[in-house]
Amino acid sequence: MEKKITILPGDGIGPEVVAAAVRVLQAIGKRYKHEFHLAYAAIGGAAIDQFNTPLPEETIETCSQSDAILLGAVGGPKWDNNPPELRPEKGLLQIRKTFDLFANLRPVKSFPSLLDSSPLKREVADNVDLLIVRELTGGIYFGEKKRTESAASDLNIYTREEIERIVDNAFELAKLRRGRLCSVDKANVLETSRLWREIVEEKKAQYPEVEVEHNLVDSVAMKLITNPSHYDVIVTDNMFGDILSDEASVITGSLGVLPSASIRGDSFGLYEPVHGSAPEIAGLGIANPAATILSVAMMLRYSFGMKEEAAEIERAVNAVFEDGYFTRDLAKDKDSALTTDEWTDKVIAEIDTNF
Amino acid sequence: MEKKITILPGDGIGPEVVAAAVRVLQAIGKRYKHEFHLAYAAIGGAAIDQFNTPLPEETIETCSQSDAILLGAVGGPKWDNNPPELRPEKGLLQIRKTFDLFANLRPVKSFPSLLDSSPLKREVADNVDLLIVRELTGGIYFGEKKRTESAASDLNIYTREEIERIVDNAFELAKLRRGRLCSVDKANVLETSRLWREIVEEKKAQYPEVEVEHNLVDSVAMKLITNPSHYDVIVTDNMFGDILSDEASVITGSLGVLPSASIRGDSFGLYEPVHGSAPEIAGLGIANPAATILSVAMMLRYSFGMKEEAAEIERAVNAVFEDGYFTRDLAKDKDSALTTDEWTDKVIAEIDTNF
Ligand SMILES: CC(C)[C@H](C(=O)O)[C@@H](O)C(=O)O
Ligand SMILES: CC(C)[C@H](C(=O)O)[C@@H](O)C(=O)O
Repeated sequence: MEKKITILPGDGIGPEVVAAAVRVLQAIGKRYKHEFHLAYAAIGGAAIDQFNTPLPEETIETCSQSDAILLGAVGGPKWDNNPPELRPEKGLLQIRKTFDLFANLRPVKSFPSLLDSSPLKREVADNVDLLIVRELTGGIYFGEKKRTESAASDLNIYTREEIERIVDNAFELAKLRRGRLCSVDKANVLETSRLWREIVEEKKAQYPEVEVEHNLVDSVAMKLITNPSHYDVIVTDNMFGDILSDEASVITGSLGVLPSASIRGDSFGLYEPVHGSAPEIAGLGIANPAATILSVAMMLRYSFGMKEEAAEIERAVNAVFEDGYFTRDLAKDKDSALTTDEWTDKVIAEIDTNF
Repeated sequence: MEKKITILPGDGIGPEVVAAAVRVLQAIGKRYKHEFHLAYAAIGGAAIDQFNTPLPEETIETCSQSDAILLGAVGGPKWDNNPPELRPEKGLLQIRKTFDLFANLRPVKSFPSLLDSSPLKREVADNVDLLIVRELTGGIYFGEKKRTESAASDLNIYTREEIERIVDNAFELAKLRRGRLCSVDKANVLETSRLWREIVEEKKAQYPEVEVEHNLVDSVAMKLITNPSHYDVIVTDNMFGDILSDEASVITGSLGVLPSASIRGDSFGLYEPVHGSAPEIAGLGIANPAATILSVAMMLRYSFGMKEEAAEIERAVNAVFEDGYFTRDLAKDKDSALTTDEWTDKVIAEIDTNF
């Protein structure tokens, strides 16, 4: 197959982890005889410095002409005091909205070889395999904002259609997994949550093979820590999804290993690691590229339908961990930690030896 | 001293834990020669059953004439399908608003003798001593709600005054503790958060002895798990506070032991355990009364200025844990678990033997 991919390295460790993931992508291309055409473009702080906007027209243009996007990370102290319109994160919010990427998928899975890095007891963090489906283009993120002398406000607003499409998406994903869906809201307080809950109830009949539960966001914030293996698919709105998916990302000790996908129902999508731009270690060559490499695996699976190729990347990453190779963030003995490039070489070797 | 206290037993285990806490209150009264006059009133499901409203006028009247309120818990499956206005939680929201209880204080402290019950590794959960100050009468909880055929919305709105008073409150509390304040918002997305952050920055100069940091809610949701002992006082809005304080409540394994206070700047306040009504164990006499007993300690300290009496309750509770006495929720060996009354007797005995 031939595929066009836009690469958005972004800020901080973004360029380093993206470079590593691109090497893995090329190895997969070679092995499975695919041609991946890459186009590089600017986003975030890097784009602000060069073009005075966090999401240049040129970048949108390049993305429009490609089959998928791979993003590193955006943000850093350099731009922290910029006005809202000139903040790196604004580029992220705009690209989501521009391409209508309404579903953010964040899988969290425990790797047995990483459990020592978890803040949770081994028996709690073990056997976690959940997927958070977060609505990404609606709600309080994009509702009207107002400011007067004496007050400020943000409107949390959801249309029926916006909720229906994300809920359908989550039901479909639950069907492909263990068939359990937890819908998270604050229906005892919010009107948007009451509509959300009604729609989940309406849709339920169309997916008889999926078992549904409703749970309040405060209660899920607790249970994600006390009993994370309870969950299969979690679906929730933009704001709750932001908080819960970050909370969930630390329970297995593998934040540096978590990928994400932002999709819209067709094959187009944006893939990025969950971790941020980590400016404090940028340029040192020690960042963990695993999350970005696994984001490439998600791209192959969701956007290109390359199931075998995706599984091969996941197998290789897992094998390298099982062999006891780690970057600095995960190594118990920091002296034996591999650099970004060394660790990536191990993954590529795994892929190659299985030709 | 003479004090009037309104007792709102509520639903589920509420009446049991409140009865236990009242016994401890009476023991303190006897030992320190205070007269506590109690008036009982209805709230929540119990009030719906009796008066067809979750917060009867009579209850408001009784509360108005007292110096403080002790609440058990509200809610249960019996009322789960009622319309919003006839839900037990509505009583809670209304009593907060009626008495302008704008500051919710939720301390989380690790008890060494309870750390085995924590989902977190001992070294992570140890030495936690934080206080969440949640704004309780504003924001998206009370902003305008709308519903049309095709959409729903909730307005998140804060006035300058609403933010100023809670921020002042948090600064004052930080001064009395370790002098560190973490203000939590989502300033990269929300206008209310940007106003919030500005006000914290303005106020900072008035409290030179307090060290301030700003942090995003998603990032705090992670750090509360990976490094909870980092925090001293956390201040945040109503919605974020709901989620983060519940998340924080499970990190030390002591949910059954956590008290809370809802106050308004004068001496009046409402005190209640953090745990809910636990309908599944209601009436069995096995509920853990520690959180309600410690809520009484908070009442003595904040509403009545009885510092020594409050400390005595806290000492007694801690001593009973150190002696290895637990109710069912915390006992390692369930056969040796004490009932609600037996455990309360131990606390009272501790208080008495120190006459
Ligand atoms: C950077 C920020 C605007 C963004 C969000 O809140 O969506 C980030 O936290 C995320 O989760 O991708
Ligand atoms: C019952 C509910 C309305 C309430 C809230 O969200 O404030 C509860 O979760 C709490 O934290 O006291």
